Amino acid sequence: MKLFKDKLDLRVKEVDSLLCVGLDSDSFKFNKEIIYKTHDLVCAYKPNTAFYEAQGEKGVAHLKMTCDYLSEEHPEIVIIIDAKRGDVENTNESYARFLFDYLRADAVTLHPYLGRDSLRPFLERKDKMNFILCRTSNKGAGEIQDLLVEGVPLYQIIAQKVAKDWNQNKNCGLVVGATYPEELASLRNMAPDLPFLIPGVGTQGGDLEKSVRAGVDKN
Amino acid sequence: MKLFKDKLDLRVKEVDSLLCVGLDSDSFKFNKEIIYKTHDLVCAYKPNTAFYEAQGEKGVAHLKMTCDYLSEEHPEIVIIIDAKRGDVENTNESYARFLFDYLRADAVTLHPYLGRDSLRPFLERKDKMNFILCRTSNKGAGEIQDLLVEGVPLYQIIAQKVAKDWNQNKNCGLVVGATYPEELASLRNMAPDLPFLIPGVGTQGGDLEKSVRAGVDKN
Repeated sequence: MKLFKDKLDLRVKEVDSLLCVGLDSDSFKFNKEIIYKTHDLVCAYKPNTAFYEAQGEKGVAHLKMTCDYLSEEHPEIVIIIDAKRGDVENTNESYARFLFDYLRADAVTLHPYLGRDSLRPFLERKDKMNFILCRTSNKGAGEIQDLLVEGVPLYQIIAQKVAKDWNQNKNCGLVVGATYPEELASLRNMAPDLPFLIPGVGTQGGDLEKSVRAGVDKN
Repeated sequence: MKLFKDKLDLRVKEVDSLLCVGLDSDSFKFNKEIIYKTHDLVCAYKPNTAFYEAQGEKGVAHLKMTCDYLSEEHPEIVIIIDAKRGDVENTNESYARFLFDYLRADAVTLHPYLGRDSLRPFLERKDKMNFILCRTSNKGAGEIQDLLVEGVPLYQIIAQKVAKDWNQNKNCGLVVGATYPEELASLRNMAPDLPFLIPGVGTQGGDLEKSVRAGVDKN
């Protein structure tokens, strides 16, 4: 059983890159082009389920072809599926099968709102990585995520829970938007060892250099 | 444009029932059997995307067949797709297309964590209904949802935001688990006019009578 962390570390050393490229088209052919042009620069690809699902079963077939192609042609590159799922435990078992078994994702993104017990089907997959939404990259992220719980913003409470309690199997990370470099730096202080997935560089306006400075862990 | 509320009200009067039946198999054939045996008793069917997606593109095809069958054979019955989606605005546009246009859902379930701005593609669909996760039915729901924000549990803050701010188009409701009748009653007090989707009666242990007493609105 190859652990996510080992696969990622190996790949990061190999290409000397922390870059994760989104695969947000709905076309296998287009994705193959992107992969052809970028595969020697990236440590991970990140397809988002939404763009494929908008095309129905055909789109899901293209997502499957994309993931199969990556697993077979580039098994050293990490697949992160940006699915933002989160349901009750019994239902999450089906989502885990979709994402980890059918699509062979190495990592996924998940909502924290239903709490740790609901995420068991994900957290018990020791070889995978579960990036929990913490501080998202959108403009209005603070509406809920900055609410103060006994003086501490909710997103920091989530980070503390993930770091101290949800991460028993060392397979949790956080999603922290590049568009919030200060929050990113504070979270890196609070959770020095957790992997961060940092979306929002590029069209969303996140600054690459600031994000790397604030977000990297000690390795 | 037929509004969700009008479609639901008409159906509730027609069958004198508030019952919503889950369609959580992954098989169109099995769903057709359930629909055949229950269609004169229900106001809504609720397929959950997870069970279909676990079977990949084939499962999504069965979900599509199920929804098409309902739209064509029983257009008076409401389709609620339990999708629990929630991403940034641009991505949610694709999810809205998947759920409202491709599958022709009348209503969906959504995560509140990214805030109102992220949900615009759902909230601007005036004819649809968006059930926002508030107090979910799982055992550990309280871990995040009961966190106190200036003395008020987070799930009540969400309910207040939805009722006062997110519901400009009168197309928001709340998901409140039948397994928490006291929280359900308090939410009904706080939001007398919002539609509630109340999962958890049956295998999850929610009590039908208590839930109906606590959850019905004045109509």
